[in-house]
Amino acid sequence: MNILVTLDSNYMKPLRVMLKSLFLNNPEEAFTIYLMHSSIKRKELADLNSFIKDHGSQLKIIELDNSHFADAPTLFYYTKEMYYRLLAHKFLPDNLSRILYLDPDILVINPIRKLYEIDIDGYLYAAAYHDIPSIKEINKIRLRPYGIEAYYNSGVLLMNLDLHRRHIKEEAIYNLVRRKSLKLIMPDQDILNALYAKRIRSIDEKLYNYDVRYFRFYKIITNNLWDMDHVINNTIILHFCGKKKPWHKDYSGKFHSLYKHYEKLAFAALPNSSSYYKAQYGW
Amino acid sequence: MNILVTLDSNYMKPLRVMLKSLFLNNPEEAFTIYLMHSSIKRKELADLNSFIKDHGSQLKIIELDNSHFADAPTLFYYTKEMYYRLLAHKFLPDNLSRILYLDPDILVINPIRKLYEIDIDGYLYAAAYHDIPSIKEINKIRLRPYGIEAYYNSGVLLMNLDLHRRHIKEEAIYNLVRRKSLKLIMPDQDILNALYAKRIRSIDEKLYNYDVRYFRFYKIITNNLWDMDHVINNTIILHFCGKKKPWHKDYSGKFHSLYKHYEKLAFAALPNSSSYYKAQYGW
Repeated sequence: MNILVTLDSNYMKPLRVMLKSLFLNNPEEAFTIYLMHSSIKRKELADLNSFIKDHGSQLKIIELDNSHFADAPTLFYYTKEMYYRLLAHKFLPDNLSRILYLDPDILVINPIRKLYEIDIDGYLYAAAYHDIPSIKEINKIRLRPYGIEAYYNSGVLLMNLDLHRRHIKEEAIYNLVRRKSLKLIMPDQDILNALYAKRIRSIDEKLYNYDVRYFRFYKIITNNLWDMDHVINNTIILHFCGKKKPWHKDYSGKFHSLYKHYEKLAFAALPNSSSYYKAQYGW
Repeated sequence: MNILVTLDSNYMKPLRVMLKSLFLNNPEEAFTIYLMHSSIKRKELADLNSFIKDHGSQLKIIELDNSHFADAPTLFYYTKEMYYRLLAHKFLPDNLSRILYLDPDILVINPIRKLYEIDIDGYLYAAAYHDIPSIKEINKIRLRPYGIEAYYNSGVLLMNLDLHRRHIKEEAIYNLVRRKSLKLIMPDQDILNALYAKRIRSIDEKLYNYDVRYFRFYKIITNNLWDMDHVINNTIILHFCGKKKPWHKDYSGKFHSLYKHYEKLAFAALPNSSSYYKAQYGW
């Protein structure tokens, strides 16, 4: 399976935690991790590379600099890295037709193949929108000029690269960003929604992009079905959305202990044997 | 390492979760699990046996019935099983000199060898007392006639079996239970404290018997040192004390997601027996 991540040095630790959870809960899969970046240090990349190799997967590094986005407008304190995930198809190998983009602030707590194989024929993406009333309404109103009906979260994106190559154009994106009337709050996510929402296949956020801040909300709207037991056994992706992150000192939340557990495993010395995995899973 | 558990059918599922956490976090150890019981069904024992074998450890079953405690007084709705952990030395092999008793409502989240090897020369037990002011005071007052200074929790007990054989006598225990003036609330734990508190080596509850209800308390008394990160990386044993248990539907707590994670792993590899437990317990 092809996984795409785009980040800077600040997210290297969470990335490793995310990957650890992905590897542990998908022990029979091999992944090719494409990392698009512009500023990560050699040493950090080498560490990441051996970490990924030790888990039977491989890392492919795509290093970019500003020359790659020479014509792109920038915004405020956002760098050109905001374009990486939207324009990834320009830098990925031509023969890839599908890739799963994942934010680093997530945990993959169950097998991911069902997500990876979702039918996206005719769609640019599969993504989930967060159906929390307040979030949904605010973003729908904010992006009303673009006639969107749902505001998709861009943290988990299954990409149809064949269609991206044909339909996602730099100029369309740059033109949108240049419009002064549009206030981009979360630039890449706003662009995704403003330009492509109608060509996104909607997937269940409770399975594929579970916002950990809304445990109670999900439980209530499902008549208590989606309790902790159900989340742990069914949700594929936990997303630590928002400003408070589980690797921060002052974090507190329902999935804090679970996150710290994976973080510990991500940085534990890895015994170089398959018996470690056998012990982990009893298989 | 020798591990002792004493329980009935109601705790078979938590036992398996506890053992899974023990095995996962001690991948290089082999354990001999001694299970003392009187009423667990053949099928359940066979399942447990293969689960333990699959993890490279072994199960030894000690089946008792009331004939073994013919002279023992019983209390209210407590059965004679309350004596199992206190009198285990009478039923364990003569050549064992040390065993670690563990309650089934715990998770072992880090290597346990440091605990197992604590020096208990001259002590009957190593155990932790819960230093939460309310608990401590109530129990000290309650057991004042016995002059105890700390009220030890009996959920994690490192036992010096050589000394038990010489100093722990059935009659002393039965005599204590027969005294009408003593109101035993948690019988085995009360007996342990009333008779043997002075010969218990005290160990740090934050490391070896962390009461999950008191996350905030431990954090405050350590000037924020014992935060979630520190717990996950340092605490060996999380103890889900109290009436609300993490396998109950309505449970809520800081370590709920982590417990459910281990529970999932404990039942992941054996779909047949997991449906067996589902039928048994309604989960």
